[in-house]
Amino acid sequence: MIDFSNDLKALIDSPHKQWLDTLAPQLTTFNNNPHGNLKRWQRVIEQLPNIQTENYQLGDTVTVGSPEEASDSDRARITGLLQQLQPWRKGPFDLFGVFIDTEWRSDWKWQRVKPHIDDLTGKQVLDVGCGSGYHLWRMLEAGAKRVWGIDPGELFLMQFQAIRNMMPARYQSKAHFFPVGIEHMPELKSFDTVFSMGVLYHRRSPLAFLQELKSLIKPGGQLVLETIVVEGDETTVMLPGERYAQMRNVWFLPSAKALSVWLERLGFKDIAIVDHNTTSLEEQRRTDWMTGESLADFLDAKNPDLTVEGYKAPIRAVLTARV
Amino acid sequence: MIDFSNDLKALIDSPHKQWLDTLAPQLTTFNNNPHGNLKRWQRVIEQLPNIQTENYQLGDTVTVGSPEEASDSDRARITGLLQQLQPWRKGPFDLFGVFIDTEWRSDWKWQRVKPHIDDLTGKQVLDVGCGSGYHLWRMLEAGAKRVWGIDPGELFLMQFQAIRNMMPARYQSKAHFFPVGIEHMPELKSFDTVFSMGVLYHRRSPLAFLQELKSLIKPGGQLVLETIVVEGDETTVMLPGERYAQMRNVWFLPSAKALSVWLERLGFKDIAIVDHNTTSLEEQRRTDWMTGESLADFLDAKNPDLTVEGYKAPIRAVLTARV
Amino acid sequence: MIDFSNDLKALIDSPHKQWLDTLAPQLTTFNNNPHGNLKRWQRVIEQLPNIQTENYQLGDTVTVGSPEEASDSDRARITGLLQQLQPWRKGPFDLFGVFIDTEWRSDWKWQRVKPHIDDLTGKQVLDVGCGSGYHLWRMLEAGAKRVWGIDPGELFLMQFQAIRNMMPARYQSKAHFFPVGIEHMPELKSFDTVFSMGVLYHRRSPLAFLQELKSLIKPGGQLVLETIVVEGDETTVMLPGERYAQMRNVWFLPSAKALSVWLERLGFKDIAIVDHNTTSLEEQRRTDWMTGESLADFLDAKNPDLTVEGYKAPIRAVLTARV
Amino acid sequence: MIDFSNDLKALIDSPHKQWLDTLAPQLTTFNNNPHGNLKRWQRVIEQLPNIQTENYQLGDTVTVGSPEEASDSDRARITGLLQQLQPWRKGPFDLFGVFIDTEWRSDWKWQRVKPHIDDLTGKQVLDVGCGSGYHLWRMLEAGAKRVWGIDPGELFLMQFQAIRNMMPARYQSKAHFFPVGIEHMPELKSFDTVFSMGVLYHRRSPLAFLQELKSLIKPGGQLVLETIVVEGDETTVMLPGERYAQMRNVWFLPSAKALSVWLERLGFKDIAIVDHNTTSLEEQRRTDWMTGESLADFLDAKNPDLTVEGYKAPIRAVLTARV
Repeated sequence: MIDFSNDLKALIDSPHKQWLDTLAPQLTTFNNNPHGNLKRWQRVIEQLPNIQTENYQLGDTVTVGSPEEASDSDRARITGLLQQLQPWRKGPFDLFGVFIDTEWRSDWKWQRVKPHIDDLTGKQVLDVGCGSGYHLWRMLEAGAKRVWGIDPGELFLMQFQAIRNMMPARYQSKAHFFPVGIEHMPELKSFDTVFSMGVLYHRRSPLAFLQELKSLIKPGGQLVLETIVVEGDETTVMLPGERYAQMRNVWFLPSAKALSVWLERLGFKDIAIVDHNTTSLEEQRRTDWMTGESLADFLDAKNPDLTVEGYKAPIRAVLTARV
Repeated sequence: MIDFSNDLKALIDSPHKQWLDTLAPQLTTFNNNPHGNLKRWQRVIEQLPNIQTENYQLGDTVTVGSPEEASDSDRARITGLLQQLQPWRKGPFDLFGVFIDTEWRSDWKWQRVKPHIDDLTGKQVLDVGCGSGYHLWRMLEAGAKRVWGIDPGELFLMQFQAIRNMMPARYQSKAHFFPVGIEHMPELKSFDTVFSMGVLYHRRSPLAFLQELKSLIKPGGQLVLETIVVEGDETTVMLPGERYAQMRNVWFLPSAKALSVWLERLGFKDIAIVDHNTTSLEEQRRTDWMTGESLADFLDAKNPDLTVEGYKAPIRAVLTARV
Repeated sequence: MIDFSNDLKALIDSPHKQWLDTLAPQLTTFNNNPHGNLKRWQRVIEQLPNIQTENYQLGDTVTVGSPEEASDSDRARITGLLQQLQPWRKGPFDLFGVFIDTEWRSDWKWQRVKPHIDDLTGKQVLDVGCGSGYHLWRMLEAGAKRVWGIDPGELFLMQFQAIRNMMPARYQSKAHFFPVGIEHMPELKSFDTVFSMGVLYHRRSPLAFLQELKSLIKPGGQLVLETIVVEGDETTVMLPGERYAQMRNVWFLPSAKALSVWLERLGFKDIAIVDHNTTSLEEQRRTDWMTGESLADFLDAKNPDLTVEGYKAPIRAVLTARV
Repeated sequence: MIDFSNDLKALIDSPHKQWLDTLAPQLTTFNNNPHGNLKRWQRVIEQLPNIQTENYQLGDTVTVGSPEEASDSDRARITGLLQQLQPWRKGPFDLFGVFIDTEWRSDWKWQRVKPHIDDLTGKQVLDVGCGSGYHLWRMLEAGAKRVWGIDPGELFLMQFQAIRNMMPARYQSKAHFFPVGIEHMPELKSFDTVFSMGVLYHRRSPLAFLQELKSLIKPGGQLVLETIVVEGDETTVMLPGERYAQMRNVWFLPSAKALSVWLERLGFKDIAIVDHNTTSLEEQRRTDWMTGESLADFLDAKNPDLTVEGYKAPIRAVLTARV
């Protein structure tokens, strides 16, 4: 049983209050059918040491407290507990000297994205598929008034709550995570900026997904879309077989240009391909906090330009567009 | 468009938070299909003078301000505006010397009920079919921590909001009214005391209604039930024709004893008939604030023991029971 | 998996074809969630001997075949198989000399009812709560064009199908049984006569039930209502405790006069109490085909005017009314 | 109010009987909310002359009767009435010498498709987006046991019914048309062959549509898919702008090879591109029976290899696959 009371009260005071109609029963259903590990994960969070600090940095490494403020035994405890919330994919974080070295250098992604997005100062921001919530903190750093993340992954909710619990009240009250999918959200037209990073290729109906994103953004607002693409022109769209880079559930992979055409067809404006980048083995890799397979295992050992299935290795593009 | 934000936030912090799942979409539907007069009624409320006072009494006459604190022109304005929210049935109220002389002397009903109910101090209380909300203020007077009224009548919602707007923050924050019917409420089992005064005989399925009331009360909590009854024993139940005392939509009228049997069958405990009373022509009558027909018109002019249809005149009983 | 194909095709050709919209998915749900014994019961029916005959009588004893047409071993087999469909409540039946001596002498009930109902010749007739379907055959005898029974009891469906399988094609094609409750039927207004015998007192909301019956009858059509009543006047309605004559789930027991008032209030016309009768120990009793407890066990051994709980012993009344 | 009774009875006797659960209520909704012209169209059909004949040919021109069997005035009447069901897109038909020269030479399409499909003898066949039903008759000619067409277009239903009414009972009883969309059909897995000609490019989610088709086909059954494609390789997929060849509502146009990849990803087997063809101005053109714009108007007058919007002119491919 996760208590979303404060998140729901914040929602009632926001421009998104209509969301409550569908969200409230969804959260009840979520709590009535909890993931098998939820109780264990909640105990992990409750056992984290409660150390006073005034040091917080929402920078490249999202940081709470300094090493001097905690003992080695505190650090051992934090490490032992948060390791139970593996795998940690989006980060990094530093908690009183405990460095959570996540699978992704999400700070690198943020550095590529940040120069191209609207000023977030005072804005209502949504991150669709937010994972651990790393980027939510960066959006707050960038001045957002309030940040909202959605992701159906229960584990990611717990990672987010573990971090949020260590944050000061002024940050806690501005960052929210709901474990729901975008397909069940009403057409709010209320967010200034909507981010979706790493979701599109998991959707069998990408146009329906893009339309859903559009329906959440208010007139004049911005979409920031990051996804896997392939090389090619306006008509290049690859549909891989059952697996792509070991991932099941990968569907259409358009070229960045084809993706631009899709956005245009759906009525988006000011469409721009602002980044196009081959993920390096330094950016996505196995660490102590994600000990499963990572990018190096997904690529052909002899030719890192190919996936193990023989497809072109993933390229990731960032597009921005306006509603 | 009525703003229920503060009421919903209060709900989230209450033992009834599950109610939100059904209530939030209901209120959206309510606001999307507003009663034809809603805008006009809202303007009435907005135009009420905003006079400072520290005088409030939640007594027999629910009173805001004293005559000295307002001018005659203020009073004329209050009168003119609130007359537009006719008919006023439950009261009385006094607002800076404007006496709202309602159809019912609801204070007399409260005096009959009050000695027999559980101490309300610190309690969560629900009034099903609360009308203008008069009794909600009396429940606060009696110490309730928080009072909730439901009634599908839009006009009653507006009467309530007109009064609440004049109340001090400490009362406003404790009294809530939602324009919904009990048949759509979840089985909350969360209220300490549930009142239902004057509803049962309007329900075609009285046992279903009593079961709904039961499902809202927490274990050990109390039901206070006021309704029209007939003289008779455990097996006396009258079903009048199309009209009873001019009212359409009157269904089963049991004797108080039969009603006790019904409550027992449904599993209520400690059932008591605490009052049994023929409504006098002084208690329910036409006034300047309810200029339509009232009890005197519903009774046989030659024999006030009979209704105009020739049925026995209404007797009202109060029963209490425990869950 | 019960095959209702022929029943559904008959429905499409009937005035009740709109029923299909709700009935088709209900029957699918029924077949997808079969009663634990359904397969076993179906095997019972399949194993019944297939003996040629031209002797059929839809009389007081619904009869298929004569004793001379079957061997003793056939009879032993029929007996052994149909005993597995115990308890047999409504009857009696005679199958090639096997006399199914049911708990009820339903023929006596039919004799009391029959003189008071509309001529059934060429009529569409519905029996709500039809049990084994005994009365359906009597309605066919009385000239009905097509008879329809509903009863949620799966065992009764199997008893009906066992009997129907032995009937000639000309009867099979006119008698139908669907295992559904009336509360899910559309407002067909299409039946000439609707029977409900022995259901009303099992409904917590009797007025809703009577309204449902009304909505099935076409203008000018007839309701035939048989139920348990109590002695008393227009305002006598008993609600027994948890058990009445050992039955759980008994709700309001009105007097016949009170029941007349209810029917009138709902808009029925030509209301008549055509029979009023104390069930004798000969009419409802334990037999070889219903070996559980029966009426004699439900009554006070020392005073058969009382139930074991001390209530007045059941009286049953028959009312007719018109829509 | 269209009477689907015979079609529904045929359905009950077919392997698709589960379809009834959703179809029955859909047809009721259809009849309760009729298209504004439905009554007028029905009168057109009722007024068609009822001429006896034994001449029927389900060949390239679907033919009923010979010219000698009708008078010139009959022909004038047939022409005048059926012209009111314009536009006629799929055909041609010949009715007692009245030649319905439809926009499409659908016989040419059938000639291209026919050599590549499974033998239809004794088969259950579905045509998704069947239009006037022309191909349904050709499927019967090819030996199908029963043919089913769906198309949400009400006018096409009426064209089909006009033609079917003139057919002999032996054909009428085997051909059915329901005005519903595939997206609301249950996963029947019951058809031997499913055709979809000219629908895929109208679906925003083509993979969802292909999955729906798959869910209707029984194991071992065949899909016959005809659609607009573009030139290109496995990764060529064009999304045109708001209009393509004047059509709104055109979404993804894959190459035939890309379409093969899609089918493979969804688990289809034995995928073959059996035809690849540029539609000629003789195959799709304005006629007396479709007097609106046709292909010649959709192409660039100076360069018929381009649409008026400058896209490559439509190529149409036929693919077959197995489940």
